[in-house]
Amino acid sequence: MNIFALTKLSYGLYIVCSKNDNKINGQIANTVFQVTPEPPRVAVAVNKQNLTFEYIDKSKVFAVSVLTEEAPFTFIGKFGFKSGRDVNKFENTKYRLTKNQVPIILDYTCAYVECKVIGKFDAGSHVIFLGDVIDTDFLSEKPPMTYDYYHREVKGKTPKTASTYVEEQKDE
Amino acid sequence: MNIFALTKLSYGLYIVCSKNDNKINGQIANTVFQVTPEPPRVAVAVNKQNLTFEYIDKSKVFAVSVLTEEAPFTFIGKFGFKSGRDVNKFENTKYRLTKNQVPIILDYTCAYVECKVIGKFDAGSHVIFLGDVIDTDFLSEKPPMTYDYYHREVKGKTPKTASTYVEEQKDE
Repeated sequence: MNIFALTKLSYGLYIVCSKNDNKINGQIANTVFQVTPEPPRVAVAVNKQNLTFEYIDKSKVFAVSVLTEEAPFTFIGKFGFKSGRDVNKFENTKYRLTKNQVPIILDYTCAYVECKVIGKFDAGSHVIFLGDVIDTDFLSEKPPMTYDYYHREVKGKTPKTASTYVEEQKDE
Repeated sequence: MNIFALTKLSYGLYIVCSKNDNKINGQIANTVFQVTPEPPRVAVAVNKQNLTFEYIDKSKVFAVSVLTEEAPFTFIGKFGFKSGRDVNKFENTKYRLTKNQVPIILDYTCAYVECKVIGKFDAGSHVIFLGDVIDTDFLSEKPPMTYDYYHREVKGKTPKTASTYVEEQKDE
């Protein structure tokens, strides 16, 4: 068994946003995928420690913004390595709010998907939220960033709270 | 709303195999992802109509073989567009069986992950199986095939039973 073989699974890179009353938050995630075509449903895995988990769990809505290859590490780091409990991640970030008041990121994004949560699945440290797609559209024609591209080209790291964190990465 | 924006989500391409008593089967899937790092857990979404769904549901074990960019469409088509109810997909396919008698594909693969199912989540047409990783390793150093590469370079299509099937694709 070589746990690093799990790095051969492929992902994109996303900012998953939600709201709680009049507060908004968002976080980096790579574990977003369409589960059913009809009706279109999308699943996202979120760490229970994260503020965005609390917001999705309460508001039952989330929006996924698909990052492009142009997204720099400073931008990703703001949403991936900091908590909305400590900083306002939306300062100096271009975004708009959906009808449900959920942020869609407009910087370095090529598409978005807004979902209404219809179920959740406890997986341990993370919960998988399943949502009906209520809106989705393109934002630009730039190619989406893959998780592999993020590691190879952006030289990005993986935070401890991520689904795909491997212990030895902290020594990289 | 433009449902085609969902094509901006990124995936890999995999063969998910399972067994039922002394029978084996496998199918193409793009919806495979690690959900938790500790303990390592992997989720896979499988269509309830598929034979592999029945096998995983009964045996509670599955193995994911990660396809490489070299996998040709004829090979992918055998596992993706045919049913194990009609054909023996393992004829002329190199594979080995795990201790649990689940096939690991050795043709055009770079890694595998074997899982023991610890839960399932009904998503409609598809079920998400969540599994504890019981074995994983590399099989080659070839780059994994992404779903985007499959569409762009292999000129592959998406079967109607897939999580990411979009109606208009049948006219492509």
